[in-house]
Amino acid sequence: MKFSKVPEATIRRLSTYARYLETLEQKGETVVSSAQLAHECGVNAAQVRKDLAYFGEFGIRGVGYYIKDLYDDIRSILGLSREWRLAIIGIGNLGASLLMFKDFLKANYKIVAAFDRNPTEVLGKVSEKFGKPVEILKPDRLQEVAKERRVDIALITTPAAEAQSVADQVMTANIKGILNFTPAQIKVPPGVVVKNVYFTTILDNLVYLLQSKKKQ
Amino acid sequence: MKFSKVPEATIRRLSTYARYLETLEQKGETVVSSAQLAHECGVNAAQVRKDLAYFGEFGIRGVGYYIKDLYDDIRSILGLSREWRLAIIGIGNLGASLLMFKDFLKANYKIVAAFDRNPTEVLGKVSEKFGKPVEILKPDRLQEVAKERRVDIALITTPAAEAQSVADQVMTANIKGILNFTPAQIKVPPGVVVKNVYFTTILDNLVYLLQSKKKQ
Repeated sequence: MKFSKVPEATIRRLSTYARYLETLEQKGETVVSSAQLAHECGVNAAQVRKDLAYFGEFGIRGVGYYIKDLYDDIRSILGLSREWRLAIIGIGNLGASLLMFKDFLKANYKIVAAFDRNPTEVLGKVSEKFGKPVEILKPDRLQEVAKERRVDIALITTPAAEAQSVADQVMTANIKGILNFTPAQIKVPPGVVVKNVYFTTILDNLVYLLQSKKKQ
Repeated sequence: MKFSKVPEATIRRLSTYARYLETLEQKGETVVSSAQLAHECGVNAAQVRKDLAYFGEFGIRGVGYYIKDLYDDIRSILGLSREWRLAIIGIGNLGASLLMFKDFLKANYKIVAAFDRNPTEVLGKVSEKFGKPVEILKPDRLQEVAKERRVDIALITTPAAEAQSVADQVMTANIKGILNFTPAQIKVPPGVVVKNVYFTTILDNLVYLLQSKKKQ
């Protein structure tokens, strides 16, 4: 099976299914129908079946899905059965709020390092927000620290003008995944994956859909 | 032309083109080739032409695009020639960092209201970060304030468990656009648009691509 042929929207929905299955499991449920899974995740049952069909056969006709099994299978498909180690580069307001984002840890994402050009300047503010001291490192330590702490993914929250040079350092440090919160278009060689999360672009998209609904 | 048939990725790229055109215009440039536009935005020239072709004919063969014209056209296509007014609901770490996100204003997005269940508790912290007093309102004022301040879009940054009930209030207040930062799947009637920006889901997607690259 060619992994890359699976639509991005399917992967996004698999994450959503996994999160819902997790809540069901925590409630002590054992079985869920595709109709219920679909309803709770805002899609239809055919979509659920189609999404899962990319990866094999799941569930039992007339019964539904065993929650724990499907949850484990989806986590394994998504690569979430292991811990992924994150570094945040650029500790402004957004970087600091990501540092404090509790859901990452629940989901096997662990922030293992934070970098800022002016570590001393932000240190006090961030530590105060946290209620405990936080270590902010200078970016020139990226390579050494990335290796030592086995960083898998870099979250770039610097100003846009610095994003490419930061990304270049990230790649030199042998980090293969980048989550880019800046509007810069980061250029990477094959083998490195970038996802862009620029809030303004997402709002642009929402606005486009809003105005096109009005015109219909 | 059916607006809704334009791929989401095209709309996302149009935002990117617009942002690049803006920087060119600020530099005093007048013309850009589709090759240059494409290169800077991380796609190929054929993609640029295909994206624009959904909306008409742009550019002059052998010359390229007039920057100002194309910028204005794209902004008009995206619905960005007017101001869009935002409310942020839930002023925790993320909500506060969004309140301070300077790029919104540059892009004609204006935050006109902020709500939190415990306005007094967060007020001091947020105002301190801002360096000036910030008004945080109780959610029960949403309907009145949304009308008065003509809110177009609500950014929901509450805990996931509250997201649906907040969204219901948002819709009662006649707000048609929701940017949902929680993992909750918000249910809305036709006519209301929701975009989800849940960082963990985006990371899941990145991780999936990372591990599938390794397997190739």
